[in-house]
Amino acid sequence: MLVVNFMKHFSLDEIASWDRFYRANFINSLSGFKPVSLIATKNTAGIANLAIFSNIMHIGADPALVGFINRPKDAAPHTIENIEQTGSYTINHIHPSFVSAAHQTSAKYDLEISEFEKVGLHAEYKADFPAPFVMESHVQYALELSEIIPIKRNNTYLVIGEIKHVFIDPNVIENDGLINLSKVESMVSLGIDAYCSTSPVARFQYAKPDKDSAMIRFE
Amino acid sequence: MLVVNFMKHFSLDEIASWDRFYRANFINSLSGFKPVSLIATKNTAGIANLAIFSNIMHIGADPALVGFINRPKDAAPHTIENIEQTGSYTINHIHPSFVSAAHQTSAKYDLEISEFEKVGLHAEYKADFPAPFVMESHVQYALELSEIIPIKRNNTYLVIGEIKHVFIDPNVIENDGLINLSKVESMVSLGIDAYCSTSPVARFQYAKPDKDSAMIRFE
Repeated sequence: MLVVNFMKHFSLDEIASWDRFYRANFINSLSGFKPVSLIATKNTAGIANLAIFSNIMHIGADPALVGFINRPKDAAPHTIENIEQTGSYTINHIHPSFVSAAHQTSAKYDLEISEFEKVGLHAEYKADFPAPFVMESHVQYALELSEIIPIKRNNTYLVIGEIKHVFIDPNVIENDGLINLSKVESMVSLGIDAYCSTSPVARFQYAKPDKDSAMIRFE
Repeated sequence: MLVVNFMKHFSLDEIASWDRFYRANFINSLSGFKPVSLIATKNTAGIANLAIFSNIMHIGADPALVGFINRPKDAAPHTIENIEQTGSYTINHIHPSFVSAAHQTSAKYDLEISEFEKVGLHAEYKADFPAPFVMESHVQYALELSEIIPIKRNNTYLVIGEIKHVFIDPNVIENDGLINLSKVESMVSLGIDAYCSTSPVARFQYAKPDKDSAMIRFE
């Protein structure tokens, strides 16, 4: 670990003066590591679409809601339009064995081309769900659209879905329900183009005001 | 890494039938690792509040927007009310040296008690910004409220702020602007109560349809 001796102050004015690629790398990594995943959809013409998304967020456990940010439609139209048309999509974790193929889905392929074929990943249909899963992924879940909320400040969209199906190896689930994602090497992303793996550090009991939280076994 | 041989299907009906704590652990970890951080505010009475949040999301680089999910107000009122009143807050990364104290901020302390004092972290005021920073954090940034969007489906809120100041050691920033957060051991969380560290795996060049992305040096 780097020893931090000096916290330099960067004001918004200074950040705004930077080259746009440097600024994008900086701001995209500032908020922390992201739960990068592949979102798979199928359009009404039957073409499967696959795209990498990193701004995914747990919104609630009951109902089981997950959200993601879709960029402005002129920059990233396919996934959100397929979800608007069909209401169905899957989210699939990324592992080191196919991270290069996953990154490649961010290339701007034409609408009539399926990224599955182009990057060499496999679409899998199951549980009578209309959208494909990514066969290579060890954590796959299917969602039905709940709501699309426009974020007017920058023309992005928060797309919220309700979890309908989960596919996972039961050996990854701890006794209390925690999915130990380090065991299947689900990756996180950093900034626009970096990918990292994770290692368990600690679990703690539910915190109460009158005492310190005890640690729970986690490895 | 665990060898995955069997992807078990869990339907929403089965998940909904589980004990609520087991289900919460499962659903909270399903969407992936989270960029857990401490959000610091100060209320109009001058009391500093500190709370751990994991559902934080990059929303855009220009303008520089970061969002987080605040649970329903009856469950988690202090941070969102302070932000509504003052418009100012800071987000501070968590490192292994104080992860136990960071988790402890999730205890339900009374409004007139500052979590800084209770958990042993230090409030730092700088850049003429009204909200405190967490002195122990190696990645600190200050935001002004842009918008609070209610998510009606589960009574949560997406709180969006615009980045105004960043404090960071320049040695953590790569030549192209990427903040290499593994170098300062910014943590990710998993589920409700687990914390992990990260290791760099790969960076890739901007993906184009006609060729495979080359790797960029990343360690």
